[in-house]
Amino acid sequence: MNEITSLNNELVKNTAKLHQKKYRDESGLFLLEGDKPVREAYSGGIEIKYAFVEKEKSAVYEFLGEKLIPTTEAVLKKISTTDTPPDVIAVGVKKTFSTASLKEAQKVVLLENIKDTGNLGTILRTSAAFGADAVVLYGDTVDLYNPKCVRAAVGNLWKLPAIHLNELDELKKLFADFQRVATLPRGENYLKNFKRKEKVLLMFGSEADGLSDELTNFATDKVKIEMTSDVESLNLSAACAVVLYQMFIV
Amino acid sequence: MNEITSLNNELVKNTAKLHQKKYRDESGLFLLEGDKPVREAYSGGIEIKYAFVEKEKSAVYEFLGEKLIPTTEAVLKKISTTDTPPDVIAVGVKKTFSTASLKEAQKVVLLENIKDTGNLGTILRTSAAFGADAVVLYGDTVDLYNPKCVRAAVGNLWKLPAIHLNELDELKKLFADFQRVATLPRGENYLKNFKRKEKVLLMFGSEADGLSDELTNFATDKVKIEMTSDVESLNLSAACAVVLYQMFIV
Repeated sequence: MNEITSLNNELVKNTAKLHQKKYRDESGLFLLEGDKPVREAYSGGIEIKYAFVEKEKSAVYEFLGEKLIPTTEAVLKKISTTDTPPDVIAVGVKKTFSTASLKEAQKVVLLENIKDTGNLGTILRTSAAFGADAVVLYGDTVDLYNPKCVRAAVGNLWKLPAIHLNELDELKKLFADFQRVATLPRGENYLKNFKRKEKVLLMFGSEADGLSDELTNFATDKVKIEMTSDVESLNLSAACAVVLYQMFIV
Repeated sequence: MNEITSLNNELVKNTAKLHQKKYRDESGLFLLEGDKPVREAYSGGIEIKYAFVEKEKSAVYEFLGEKLIPTTEAVLKKISTTDTPPDVIAVGVKKTFSTASLKEAQKVVLLENIKDTGNLGTILRTSAAFGADAVVLYGDTVDLYNPKCVRAAVGNLWKLPAIHLNELDELKKLFADFQRVATLPRGENYLKNFKRKEKVLLMFGSEADGLSDELTNFATDKVKIEMTSDVESLNLSAACAVVLYQMFIV
């Protein structure tokens, strides 16, 4: 595409609007900031609408073909959500998944009311690394396509189906024949000794509130992570990493 | 103390300066933002110089005695580093540790060139939770008392000695009789099968660059975390959590 250098260009303004959830929801688009996210999205089958690239670096991003828009650092700064704008910012089409993608799933991670975008991205990355088949976002969660979450997931955002659910009844139907594990500070079993079954749903509450009574009652098993007595709890993404490693890898 | 409501008050201005590393270094002071950090610091033996408290909430923080300064939301907003200022912000005296505190240590975590403040705080929390005796910050690392790191550590910042080291020779002397484990994407042993010795130093590189050749060569053992092949790596604090849990708890 032709070079765009004006900060008032419509496409530049519309791209910057993708900082806001409202516009991501309306358009079904999201921002990919930087070399790695763009390449991972490209090779991971994310449809790229267009990509602003710092003029001098155009040759590096030849693979983007007609999607490539040479531009200036000032434009990149305007559409970037980071202090130091990267050389490339692409606009991708969000991938949406339905509950149908849970059909074959055996190892599922559920996050309830998660509010920390960095944690969410990190947990998606960890879930993909340790072989989860899907992630369920239950209740009132942050937007998966928030730029901070996209960054924290480091190219793993779209590797697993992530499904939004709000109804306990639907959850009950979908996971009726699963072992349903609640991770709690006062679980009944230590993680070390815990034996998982073939079909397992691992449930984690938010950092602020923990797992709700609703989901705690829905659990078939309650586990706790062993730790020293002078620390109250772990960071949510650290707790997820430990539990997922133990359950899926060891 | 007497109420302070002016945004131009000297103490208010000096407190806001603690956002910057330069002033934290000069003064040896740091910010504790919010109920939990203040209480944890207070009960954890951190010397509190003074604390700004939202007027109406003064009764809640009676335990601060003479240190308590009733103030307004506007002042709290000025000295806070978060968008929504908490009801209490205290100024604490940094705790410094020398290599002497490594004398009895058996389980030590080393972080090289760590730049992400959130990760650092989370790793301190995880290290305390899984029974590490000390943390070594090697090379060019972010400031431990950066407000974001203080927040991520959630009251665990001062539970373990954190020691800054820059010289490989000093490191060699201090950990000569330790098993020195490098966590690498291409380690020789899987974490699951790894047996640690009594005195162990667990070394982690930065997210961007991994562990340096210098420290990789210094290692007696190299381990890798099992994971699926379509994910390149884990978030640093997730990797730390998994390794520390396996090494120290299981």
